[in-house]
Amino acid sequence: MNYRIEKDTMGNVEVPADKLWGAQTQRSRNNFKIGAPASMPLEIVYGFAYLKKAAAYTNCELGVLAEEKRDLIAKVCDEILAGQHDDQFPLVIWQTGSGTQSNMNINEVVANRAHQLRGMTLGEGELLVKANDDVNKSQSSNDTFPTGMHIAIYKKIVENTIPGVEQLKNTLEQKAAAFQSVVKIGRTHLMDATPLTLGQEFSGYVAQLNYGLKNLERSLSHLSELALGGTAVGTGLNTPQGYDVTVAKYIADFTGLPFRTASNKFEALAAHDALVETHGALKQLAVSLNKIANDIRLMASGPRSGIGELIIPANEPGSSIMPGKVNPTQCEAMTMVCAQVMGNDVTVTVGGTQGHYELNVFKPVMAAAVLQSAQLIGDACRSFDENCALGIEPHKENIEKLVNNSLMLVTALNTKIGYYKAAEIANAAHQNGTTLKEEAIRLGYVTDEEYDAWVRPEDMVGSLKD
Amino acid sequence: MNYRIEKDTMGNVEVPADKLWGAQTQRSRNNFKIGAPASMPLEIVYGFAYLKKAAAYTNCELGVLAEEKRDLIAKVCDEILAGQHDDQFPLVIWQTGSGTQSNMNINEVVANRAHQLRGMTLGEGELLVKANDDVNKSQSSNDTFPTGMHIAIYKKIVENTIPGVEQLKNTLEQKAAAFQSVVKIGRTHLMDATPLTLGQEFSGYVAQLNYGLKNLERSLSHLSELALGGTAVGTGLNTPQGYDVTVAKYIADFTGLPFRTASNKFEALAAHDALVETHGALKQLAVSLNKIANDIRLMASGPRSGIGELIIPANEPGSSIMPGKVNPTQCEAMTMVCAQVMGNDVTVTVGGTQGHYELNVFKPVMAAAVLQSAQLIGDACRSFDENCALGIEPHKENIEKLVNNSLMLVTALNTKIGYYKAAEIANAAHQNGTTLKEEAIRLGYVTDEEYDAWVRPEDMVGSLKD
Amino acid sequence: MNYRIEKDTMGNVEVPADKLWGAQTQRSRNNFKIGAPASMPLEIVYGFAYLKKAAAYTNCELGVLAEEKRDLIAKVCDEILAGQHDDQFPLVIWQTGSGTQSNMNINEVVANRAHQLRGMTLGEGELLVKANDDVNKSQSSNDTFPTGMHIAIYKKIVENTIPGVEQLKNTLEQKAAAFQSVVKIGRTHLMDATPLTLGQEFSGYVAQLNYGLKNLERSLSHLSELALGGTAVGTGLNTPQGYDVTVAKYIADFTGLPFRTASNKFEALAAHDALVETHGALKQLAVSLNKIANDIRLMASGPRSGIGELIIPANEPGSSIMPGKVNPTQCEAMTMVCAQVMGNDVTVTVGGTQGHYELNVFKPVMAAAVLQSAQLIGDACRSFDENCALGIEPHKENIEKLVNNSLMLVTALNTKIGYYKAAEIANAAHQNGTTLKEEAIRLGYVTDEEYDAWVRPEDMVGSLKD
Amino acid sequence: MNYRIEKDTMGNVEVPADKLWGAQTQRSRNNFKIGAPASMPLEIVYGFAYLKKAAAYTNCELGVLAEEKRDLIAKVCDEILAGQHDDQFPLVIWQTGSGTQSNMNINEVVANRAHQLRGMTLGEGELLVKANDDVNKSQSSNDTFPTGMHIAIYKKIVENTIPGVEQLKNTLEQKAAAFQSVVKIGRTHLMDATPLTLGQEFSGYVAQLNYGLKNLERSLSHLSELALGGTAVGTGLNTPQGYDVTVAKYIADFTGLPFRTASNKFEALAAHDALVETHGALKQLAVSLNKIANDIRLMASGPRSGIGELIIPANEPGSSIMPGKVNPTQCEAMTMVCAQVMGNDVTVTVGGTQGHYELNVFKPVMAAAVLQSAQLIGDACRSFDENCALGIEPHKENIEKLVNNSLMLVTALNTKIGYYKAAEIANAAHQNGTTLKEEAIRLGYVTDEEYDAWVRPEDMVGSLKD
Repeated sequence: MNYRIEKDTMGNVEVPADKLWGAQTQRSRNNFKIGAPASMPLEIVYGFAYLKKAAAYTNCELGVLAEEKRDLIAKVCDEILAGQHDDQFPLVIWQTGSGTQSNMNINEVVANRAHQLRGMTLGEGELLVKANDDVNKSQSSNDTFPTGMHIAIYKKIVENTIPGVEQLKNTLEQKAAAFQSVVKIGRTHLMDATPLTLGQEFSGYVAQLNYGLKNLERSLSHLSELALGGTAVGTGLNTPQGYDVTVAKYIADFTGLPFRTASNKFEALAAHDALVETHGALKQLAVSLNKIANDIRLMASGPRSGIGELIIPANEPGSSIMPGKVNPTQCEAMTMVCAQVMGNDVTVTVGGTQGHYELNVFKPVMAAAVLQSAQLIGDACRSFDENCALGIEPHKENIEKLVNNSLMLVTALNTKIGYYKAAEIANAAHQNGTTLKEEAIRLGYVTDEEYDAWVRPEDMVGSLKD
Repeated sequence: MNYRIEKDTMGNVEVPADKLWGAQTQRSRNNFKIGAPASMPLEIVYGFAYLKKAAAYTNCELGVLAEEKRDLIAKVCDEILAGQHDDQFPLVIWQTGSGTQSNMNINEVVANRAHQLRGMTLGEGELLVKANDDVNKSQSSNDTFPTGMHIAIYKKIVENTIPGVEQLKNTLEQKAAAFQSVVKIGRTHLMDATPLTLGQEFSGYVAQLNYGLKNLERSLSHLSELALGGTAVGTGLNTPQGYDVTVAKYIADFTGLPFRTASNKFEALAAHDALVETHGALKQLAVSLNKIANDIRLMASGPRSGIGELIIPANEPGSSIMPGKVNPTQCEAMTMVCAQVMGNDVTVTVGGTQGHYELNVFKPVMAAAVLQSAQLIGDACRSFDENCALGIEPHKENIEKLVNNSLMLVTALNTKIGYYKAAEIANAAHQNGTTLKEEAIRLGYVTDEEYDAWVRPEDMVGSLKD
Repeated sequence: MNYRIEKDTMGNVEVPADKLWGAQTQRSRNNFKIGAPASMPLEIVYGFAYLKKAAAYTNCELGVLAEEKRDLIAKVCDEILAGQHDDQFPLVIWQTGSGTQSNMNINEVVANRAHQLRGMTLGEGELLVKANDDVNKSQSSNDTFPTGMHIAIYKKIVENTIPGVEQLKNTLEQKAAAFQSVVKIGRTHLMDATPLTLGQEFSGYVAQLNYGLKNLERSLSHLSELALGGTAVGTGLNTPQGYDVTVAKYIADFTGLPFRTASNKFEALAAHDALVETHGALKQLAVSLNKIANDIRLMASGPRSGIGELIIPANEPGSSIMPGKVNPTQCEAMTMVCAQVMGNDVTVTVGGTQGHYELNVFKPVMAAAVLQSAQLIGDACRSFDENCALGIEPHKENIEKLVNNSLMLVTALNTKIGYYKAAEIANAAHQNGTTLKEEAIRLGYVTDEEYDAWVRPEDMVGSLKD
Repeated sequence: MNYRIEKDTMGNVEVPADKLWGAQTQRSRNNFKIGAPASMPLEIVYGFAYLKKAAAYTNCELGVLAEEKRDLIAKVCDEILAGQHDDQFPLVIWQTGSGTQSNMNINEVVANRAHQLRGMTLGEGELLVKANDDVNKSQSSNDTFPTGMHIAIYKKIVENTIPGVEQLKNTLEQKAAAFQSVVKIGRTHLMDATPLTLGQEFSGYVAQLNYGLKNLERSLSHLSELALGGTAVGTGLNTPQGYDVTVAKYIADFTGLPFRTASNKFEALAAHDALVETHGALKQLAVSLNKIANDIRLMASGPRSGIGELIIPANEPGSSIMPGKVNPTQCEAMTMVCAQVMGNDVTVTVGGTQGHYELNVFKPVMAAAVLQSAQLIGDACRSFDENCALGIEPHKENIEKLVNNSLMLVTALNTKIGYYKAAEIANAAHQNGTTLKEEAIRLGYVTDEEYDAWVRPEDMVGSLKD
């Protein structure tokens, strides 16, 4: 491979000749061979591209950066956002905990690419746009990395997570309406209980997702606050007057999202409770989705020796050894995602507790975990929706058989003959393998007509307006 | 011990003669010898007392319970709330996951105590107020236990957690103001960085707690929704028309808290995402408090061979072997509480995922964990406040010495001579064990006067309005 | 209340007149009002009693403590171990993270009780046996607390956890044998699969518990190492020559357990990986028990509208509203315990990561969490065994019906006619609601006789020696 | 893109013409668009390659597969293991929870590649080696996936994790020896305590890693048991006599690792406690490494305003804004890895609890998490070793200054003048800002000569044999 020499304050480093990055990126590659290369999420790189461009505009507006430099920086950032330089960001999550090296990676790429844009050759001639003094002007890794991760996560949530969850929720809502009158047995403790409708069951899922979405949306407020302008320790050293407010406005403008400058920059650098808060909401959604996916696969279990109340789409052969088997594979993908999100929550929490003094140095691992959870939940909801939820149909024959068998229909008699006599009927039917009606009449507690009038599953499901 | 015979639908059980509980409570004691007795939190018992009284009033208002019974039930509930029967609730957390046996415990105690209030003897004569048919009227364990736990947790949070956190936050706010001009070294990566003021540092802590409180308060909305009226599976079977709304109003009235009926009863029984949500907010506070307590003990470390920037109160001898030792014991209690809360979050999360069909049967363990976290955070904040935060003072001599030593003051020169030359100065001073000023002048980058004018810690801390 | 004055190096403190504790215990009560009083587990107090007695014997043997003092200390320790002073240990978990105050609590109680044993009155006269100089001789909180917690946890595991798990395992082993020939449908993905026997299913549970027990037993080796002799920072300052080895021998002697001195005292004070290791093994058991309890309640679900393959004991009325309902309550208690243990694992892990320099100051919370898990798992296994596992019976009629219905019996034809044709048969039967045999013959792939000879559930379960 | 038609039991599917995979792989790509493509770890693919080859050999040896087919299968597996087909495995973790589709992916690739090896064209002509009937012969996804993941994880641990941890441990051991006589202040509660040597401190780290390695190595026993031979539900249906033992021997032979057939196949399919056990050991190592990395960065903090006892290598410029800053970046990468491993432990634990009946369907997420932790710990140890630990040097001047300052040297006087007088001296020195010696003499408790003879840090560190 061909190399060129790049230098930083510590000296010279060999860099692959065709790469835009510089000395510090290369040092990081050499010093942090941990896990797969380039594990730092591209979304964070793009977050950086927005903020570098915004910083250039702000610095120029405030008189500390020339227009020519601003325009070069902005042009490279736009190229990055267009995906033209994805292979120029080789660093890993497991680097310095402030993400300094990823900040330098983008500073170096912008500086070198600007050099090219001026018609120059990499590694030759003086750079007009300098990585530290220009691209990073009025910035520190300590305020850029949290800014970049807030941008990345906010975008991921509004562009992927929320639409995905809503898509699934809408389908479940339609199913709840469609199944509104399908009376089925209820189950508590996994045991037969009083009836409800399948639509009521699904309405509970919709309610869960609504609460989860609400909490996730509320968490966006904290996430919309940007650290940029705090520089090294939160004081804003080396930034021009008004920089923090203006740069946030540019970012809001460029992203079309309601970012604003953080009200307290010390918190914004030293703590990442915004990520803890957002991931807490993602975890709540995982809890809900786990319940929903679990229920659906339990109800779809069978086809002949399980519960068999739901029919779910058969998307693929289910078994490499058992011919004709169909499995609730979307439920399984979903619950695996939930397990991952539950683990990620601990990672984010642990990282969140360990800020020291003016800086939390678990930024990359926290950001990557939140991004992963946000991506997986959105994707899994869409996949689950399109490949499972949309196609769910009740197996009405099974449903009817199971509800009519249930001994818990006796509960309807509580208000007529009291809990104790009702229990006696149920116990007798259970012991004798008979029907409730047979025992109710045999014990003399109700007449045939009373039984038929009082014990009607369809009257036990309450009003269906819910 | 003396016993009397109590019976339920399964037959006779021996119960200690002097106890108010009945057959089902006793069965639970016999069948669940897991951990210490009576681990079910009393707060949940009190939550039940509120709801049993409210149910009696509602049942009476809606014409299904006699006034005499209502008044007896209400009277016993008031006695329970006054703490007169605390020893009548011997059950453990590790029972049926719906808390059925704790519901029956209170039903039985109310029924038997009402019997006594009518001048009768325990175990003799017919009960006027029956456990199932009267005390539990229009109810199921499945809707009472979640109602009881919502009441208990809501009260705990507004009466203990929030006031505790606010008390600490207020002290930290006062400290932030008092320390506003104490210029000190900043530290990032635990390493010397540019200066800030001690007040700025504390303002970050205040900001963290403000975000945490806001999130906790928002979570109360979901928690204020009560399952009562859903009965067995959420359909409200065996409840009179209008029961759910009315009973929530009575509970709101009796507790003085804004409870209302859950908008979807199926969710309210089958999922406990409200607890997941609330505990997520408690965990966020734990994350913040851990950071704060950690910082304070790091800054207070010493007294002679540590950082030594803060003086914290000496509340007790610190060591059984090292005389004169003083330790940051309140920080340690706090961070242990945080570790507990982080663990509890996983317990609550796992419990939350495992509802099946119409019921989540991890209610007791989830409720107990949330109550413990809410209690511990409130208590620990108060303890930390009164025994540590209030007495924190800066060790100004140490602070001044450390900030003036710092090589990172060189950052002030970035905008004058560029990042590279500034780095050269800092590196030279570090290598040679000299001062920045000596090297700056020796290298010829600044004059004596320039250095003094440009490198001033007090000018590097930004505006102090934050 | 009456008080007497006790003093320590910081001055005078009022102590309840009838209590044996002294100044430092009282200070801790005043300074740490966090959670319920006396939450520090008594098992740890007893662990301390063993070690204080052993230290007295060792100090005497090595010539630094008088026999009279040794005997007084030993006598009080024996009283404590006999449970005579349980109400003298009022401190909480949430104190100093080294447990210093609990160490002082026992030092003070021993000193004051020794005073009484000499016929003196509390608070009057000079103490012969002094808390720091005698009871705590050759010790520090930093080596006593980890020693006390190792003793407490080791005892709990061998006396409660392991016997509990083994009791359940033995029952499951008997059931596996008894059910060896009960052919039933297998289920994978919750869906019908090829058959196996109920005994084979239970043999898997036994295997899980065997692995878990083996891991737990292996973890005892690390736990058997005692920090005592390390004193303040691990160097053994202020201990006589040979102290550490001898004191461990005395503890082994007094407890009858194979304790020995830690091979590296610095590790033993600064890290509590032994607890992390042991709790990891407890968590593994929780994972196994969760699977087992879950399976059993799924197979016992019904009685009429679920799976219904197992009959479990009816120990209590299952519902306060649904008469005659029986629930898998022991499974629920067990899985709640598992959720708690999973949370405790995070608490222990977080505590374990946060030792600093020479000391880990999360000792009380870590020790309490491990003790709780060890207690709950042992208790829950016993409860589950006696109230559920022992009484499990197969519902043979249901089992037979479900296995014969299954379309997955077609798998037996793979080796005869190939996977593709077998799948065609299964699909046809599923589509047409027919039997496999009907379709197999209709499609012309097998004859009537071949089908009967090849598709026999009892031939599909392999050898039963497993 | 060009496509060819592949078919499975559900019908035709379009597959990219140049890819070796077949219908089921393609269905999975279409149905599971969750997260980044090809997230299923290649290590698992390689594990499958070993087992497919071993199965072919075993099937042939037992007379159910032709030699020609065996050789073709083996040849493709060898190609896969040589990395020639890495781009043929596009599936994601978030698929069916049994990994069926990844099993089919390899079955299809082997079948199609064997076709090519016979000189045929993809998509044309009859396949000699069939995916289900030949490559998957005597197998099911249910026993192959756990076998593949055990192989992958076992290899990763012995080839990456253990060597990485040992490399770091060896360096720490050398440092412990080299620093054996460097007397420094001890710190407990982050506060000054009695002295020890830097070598003693490092010996504690070595001890931690030794315990962790021992636990990890013990966990390999469970991991060495292979599910293969259990087929669909553990009974071994459709396998020839002796298959399970023989196939494990071939795998052991091909990998050079001590694999053996699982003693209970039901456990091996339905539970993955082996992964829970192994990851528990990985988590213990993470706990230890977190402590070690934390200590090192605390001791290296400064350079002028922190502790400054250690000098660590400066590998890269530390700050994009603060010139000359050097940060403990390897410590940060390490502790971020630890946070990830702690989260992964919850993911693995949750997955482990959720097996149902005969199958655990969290296989892919569990396997991926264990592999990630094993990779990261090994890599991070190596990176930390080479870029930090190897270069650690004591800053002797700072160390000496800090130890001589410490008031806790007074502890040496406990055995001479008693704890109380010693405390008085320390308190006085602390109050008055004086030295211990000044106060000791002023208070008249010791003479000048006695003080010098008794209070010697180098005499307070115990024997150095540890």
